[in-house]
Parts: sequence; structure tokens; C-alpha cells
Amino acid sequence: MLGNFSYKNATKLYFGENALQFLNDELPKYGDTVQLIYGGGSIKKNGVYDEVTAILKANGKRIVEDGGVMPNPTVQKLREGVNLARENGVSLLLAVGGGSCCDYAKAISVSVNCDEDPWDKYYMRFEEPTCEIVPVGCILTMAGTGSEMNAGAVITNHEMKLKIGHVFGEEVMPKFSILNPRYTMTLPKRQMTAGIYDIFNHICEQYFSGEDDNVSDDLAEALMKSVIRNSLVAVEDPENYEARSNIMWAATWALNTLISRGKTTDWMVHMLGQAAGAYTDATHGLTLAAVSLPYYRHILPYGLQKFVRFAVNVWGVRPEGKSDMEIANEGLAALADWMKQIGVAVTLTDLGATETMIEGIADGTIILKGGYKTLTRAEVVQILKASL
Amino acid sequence: MLGNFSYKNATKLYFGENALQFLNDELPKYGDTVQLIYGGGSIKKNGVYDEVTAILKANGKRIVEDGGVMPNPTVQKLREGVNLARENGVSLLLAVGGGSCCDYAKAISVSVNCDEDPWDKYYMRFEEPTCEIVPVGCILTMAGTGSEMNAGAVITNHEMKLKIGHVFGEEVMPKFSILNPRYTMTLPKRQMTAGIYDIFNHICEQYFSGEDDNVSDDLAEALMKSVIRNSLVAVEDPENYEARSNIMWAATWALNTLISRGKTTDWMVHMLGQAAGAYTDATHGLTLAAVSLPYYRHILPYGLQKFVRFAVNVWGVRPEGKSDMEIANEGLAALADWMKQIGVAVTLTDLGATETMIEGIADGTIILKGGYKTLTRAEVVQILKASL
Repeated sequence: MLGNFSYKNATKLYFGENALQFLNDELPKYGDTVQLIYGGGSIKKNGVYDEVTAILKANGKRIVEDGGVMPNPTVQKLREGVNLARENGVSLLLAVGGGSCCDYAKAISVSVNCDEDPWDKYYMRFEEPTCEIVPVGCILTMAGTGSEMNAGAVITNHEMKLKIGHVFGEEVMPKFSILNPRYTMTLPKRQMTAGIYDIFNHICEQYFSGEDDNVSDDLAEALMKSVIRNSLVAVEDPENYEARSNIMWAATWALNTLISRGKTTDWMVHMLGQAAGAYTDATHGLTLAAVSLPYYRHILPYGLQKFVRFAVNVWGVRPEGKSDMEIANEGLAALADWMKQIGVAVTLTDLGATETMIEGIADGTIILKGGYKTLTRAEVVQILKASL
Repeated sequence: MLGNFSYKNATKLYFGENALQFLNDELPKYGDTVQLIYGGGSIKKNGVYDEVTAILKANGKRIVEDGGVMPNPTVQKLREGVNLARENGVSLLLAVGGGSCCDYAKAISVSVNCDEDPWDKYYMRFEEPTCEIVPVGCILTMAGTGSEMNAGAVITNHEMKLKIGHVFGEEVMPKFSILNPRYTMTLPKRQMTAGIYDIFNHICEQYFSGEDDNVSDDLAEALMKSVIRNSLVAVEDPENYEARSNIMWAATWALNTLISRGKTTDWMVHMLGQAAGAYTDATHGLTLAAVSLPYYRHILPYGLQKFVRFAVNVWGVRPEGKSDMEIANEGLAALADWMKQIGVAVTLTDLGATETMIEGIADGTIILKGGYKTLTRAEVVQILKASL
């Protein structure tokens, strides 16, 4: 069944080895002052920083430097970034990096012209922007989060031990994003594979959810198969442009709202993973990997037919002569094997979590509805323990 | 391989049984005068006309009536529509109908403020708009063309015996489209199945083309399988909402530029079918159906591996112990069987074409590059003869 919905996604995407040149087409649309957002400085080593700043200068832009965005952007950093944008009257927030930089830019964009504290307004009270939004552009150097074509922004509050995502409306989506698969090749392999699992899980979150067996599920399976096939190539040969480009493009469509149209979703792997991430500060994709199989094994009986479909259509499990439960379990076993193959078969223990943190992580886990089974707190604890 | 490309599609879509109510959200964005575009009057019988005009009036709009859009909109009608828009200072072109009405609205939108004749400018010289574009909205009553989320507009010139499509830039895409699957249920079954074949062929045109085996092809297969599965339900039970809604949503994504990203395309089935349509004025989807199998049989040796993939992934052909040619041919046989099942196994003769028209149709066939084989004129004639 395909429920009622609306869809709009107006981000302009430039994809390919020559994509950065199109920044010259976009910059004239915005004012003179650009807040240049980036992470720990890898873009200064691989040359992307120099390329981008050269284009900014050639277009007569004043650059406001905003480096040091951490993998899980903090609320302190967000408040600093908002002040920087206010003090400089910034007209474009240009994120150069992965999903963290894009998310951080979007969180600034909805806060510059609002008086309230962004954490309270967007992450505690989940309000919508009530002030003018500063435009965001992204130059992506890592494939995974889909942040380049969606309106999500995850922010971490270490004091409160909370990592929370707010999915804003379509007006918060980046105005443009530049996707050059070559940039993703400069990443360490472990970040590449964490990103790949993040992509795969984004698809799973929308696939294993309410309103089954519609076009969205067909598209989800296509993206999953693409990610699986290309990840196996990329893990063996990270320099393979074809594999890296397909992974990058699949990542964008895995989380730009398309494959959730007409469906209900509960995003429980993310809710569990993000809660664990607030405690461990571990890489996002790996926290998802750690909790996925325990979670899927737990909900399998409530969505059995979908897990059968997953096994057959995604993993090629032959159903003849097997019970539904056997087929479904073979699908999860194939998922577990693939996770081992690409190197993301991790536990929460591997990521630094301990038994003593479980209650706290459970407290930080937001329980949403829309999936096959609305979890109780006791079930959250059970899944987290099984993930250690 | 995934080539370099850009992507933007900003059409806002409202989908579902209650979609029309969102017209109230869109209308305030535009001026007072709305050109109401529709076809032969079926919307007056099924109540859609009354619903739409009630909303227009409630929003204080002045309605400029523009009915009688034919299934293949003519250049004469286009010129009349342009004059109507000019005389009334129209601020929104609202198409209520199928792809013909949407196409016609877009062709008007790029012509109202241009002095040159639209046929000469856009269909003979293939220029881009050089004047302000009047916004277009669509209320779709037929699934098939994808016109609701793309920038294409096909116009027919009977004097010149030419039917030509111009795919404009993203700025010509409808600002919003309203998709209620229930509306499509008022169509005669033959129009439904012609639309279904149109959808399927849109996917094939982009799938059987250059730069193979990327994410776009994975998504194309998902859409094809969705169309096949749901068409078999809809043909038996045209009132099945689930099937009709999935077909409608698949139609939008079959031709909104997504699945051609990173690929080259030659659209030769459309080039052949449209040329035949200019002679016969037959339903668009059926002209495509008539030429498809002769065309695919002809190009099969040049794209053998893709036809093997098509057979296995789309039609479930088991490859064990068979040659590539055998597998590929089984795929085309499965396609032929499905076309019979849904009732679109037609020839050009069935559609009113005769042997004497072949040379003229061949003259009207635009030969494009980007597929597995750039056709010669002799090959075009050969394919057309095999389609009789």
C-alpha cells in the first residue's frame, strides 16, 4: 500500500569528476560573504581546500573560516558557528566535508536569524524554523549520510549525553551540492566502510517499516543491491571510480525522502545507534552496525513476510522447501556475512560501550512508532545488551 | 559506469486520495488569472472539473477556459492557447488531464512572452526559452507520460506530418502536480494499458542505452518490476487502488530524469513511435508498443549483455545452461507475453498505418545517438516494415 504524501526536493546536484567547476555557476546567486565550513583539516592536505578557496576568491567572495567541525558536531560548536555567521552577516554557508559538515551547516542555517538557543528550539522542543533561513551549499568528500540532499541535521550534546537528529522541512535542504567521487577516495578505508553501512542502514530503516510492498520498497531493494555489489568492489579496490561513484549516488537517494514516500518509518536502528553514539562518540555508521542485527532479530517475527522478501530479493536466498522463518533467517545471515566482508561486524563493546552504560543509553533512546513493533524500554535494554 | 551529470527537479508533488485539497496551498502563490486546460470534457462527467473550479473560485481566481486539448496536441491548438494566455494576462497555467494537457501547458508556458512562433522556435530550431516562463501546475487524471514532473512537451504538426518532443530545462517543469490515483480509474481500460506501456517503455529507453550497469539501471529494473507486477493486478481489477497508485507513482519516476542520470540515451522507440503517430494519430503508448519488439530484436546483438541482464533481473529467466543469445531472446519473449497479457500487443497496421506510409514515417523519424546502435535510414525502414 502507498499512503498519502507530498514530495519536493529542489537541491541542485552536480555529479562527477568535473563537478567542482559548477561552483562558479552557483556562487553568483548569493551575497558576498561565505562561511567556509570544514572538519579536521584533511581538505587542506588533499588539495580540496585550495581548489574551493580559489573559486571563492575568483568570484569575489569574502571567506569566513569555520574549520574544526568534529565527526559528531556538538551544540557548543553549533553556537559558535551561529555567532560567526551573525557577526559576519554571512550570505552562504558552504560545507566542505562529509555529513557532519553538511548537518552542522543546516543547523546554523535555521539558527542565525532566530533568537532562541538552537538546542532548546530544535532538539528539545522540535520546533520548526520561524526565521529567515541562510542558504546552504555542500561539497561532499564522503558518501554516507545523504545530508547533501535532505533536511536532516544531527547534533550532539555531550553534557546531556544526547545525540539527536532533527529532520527539517524541504526549505532547509541544501540549495546545491557538489559530488565528486574522487574526493571520497582520500578517506581511510574504515571511514569508507562505515559510510557504506550508514547508507545500507538508511535504506533498511525505510524498507523495514509500515505500508509494505509498494514502489518505495522496489526502489529500496534496487539501492541495496547496488550498495552491496559496489561495496564488495570498493573494499577490494578503493580506487575503483565506478564503484565509488555508484556508492556516492546511491547514498544520496538512500536518504533524500524518496524511498520513504507512502510509508511509515520508526528509524529505530538510528535511535539506538545515536543514543550509543552520545556515550561513546563512535563513528555513526559503526554504532548502527553494532545494534542492527540484534534489533532485526528482535523484530523479525513482527515483520516476517518482509524479512522473507528481503532474503529472496536482496540476497538471492532460494526459498524452495524452506519455512518463512528459515528464509528470513538466511537473509539476516547473509547480511551478517556481508558486514564481515566489508569490515563493519562490530559490537558496542568494540566501540567503547560497557554494561554500566546500558541504562543511560536506553534513557537516551527515543522510541518512535511506525515500524513492525513499537519497542518497550525493556526491549531497548535487551537489544542493547545483545549488541555489547 | 556513471557519467558526469547534474540533477534538479523542484516540482512539488501531492499524492493520494486527498491530494486535491493541497491546491488550496498552491494557488495563493500565483496571480489572479488561471488558464484552466483540459481535454475532451471527461473531467466534466467525472466531477473533477467541478471540484477544481470550486477550489479556484474559493481562492478568488478568474478562470480562463481552455478545453478541447486533443490526445496529440496540435500546433494550431498551441497557437490558440498562447493567444488566450496573452489576451488574459494569465498568471498560472493549470492543466487537468493526462500528459497531453500537461505537455500543452508547458509548450504555452515558454511561448506566452516570446514573439517567435513556438513551432519554429522550439520544434524546428530546438531553441531554449528566451522569455519569462509562465508557471504550470498539473492535476493528473492519467498515469503514463511523466509530464507531471518533467520538462518535456510533445507537439504534433499535421500539415508537416511531424510529432516532435522538446525536453526543456528544469525551469519549465511544473511548479506543482497533484496525483490522485482514483482519478485514473475513470479512464477506459484501453487508455490505462496504453499508459502502462508508455511507462514501461520510458524505463526501457533509458535502460537500453549507453553507460551501463550503474545505479540508474538498478533503479530502472525496480521500476520495471513494479510496473509489471501492478499492471497484472490492474488489468484484472482496474479499481484496485494499490495497483493504480503504484503505477501512478512509478510513472512519475520513470520519466523525471532520475534514471537517465549518468547515462546516454537515444530514445529511438519514441522517435519511431512518434513518427508513426504523426501519420496515424494513434494513442502514443500504442505506437510505442507497435515498434518496440522489432526495434529491440534489431539492436539485441549490439547490446547483448544488457538484454541478458534484462531477461534475468526483470523477467526472472534462469540462465543456467543457456547461451547469452538464448537468455536474451527469452527476455524479449517474456516481454512479448506480458504485452499480450495486458492487451498492448499491436502492430502499426492495427493502428492504421500502411505499407505506403513507411517512407514518410521514416522521413519523420529523428535518428539520435547514445544507444547500442545508431540506426541508418535503411534500418529505420526495416524496423518499421517489421512493425506493420
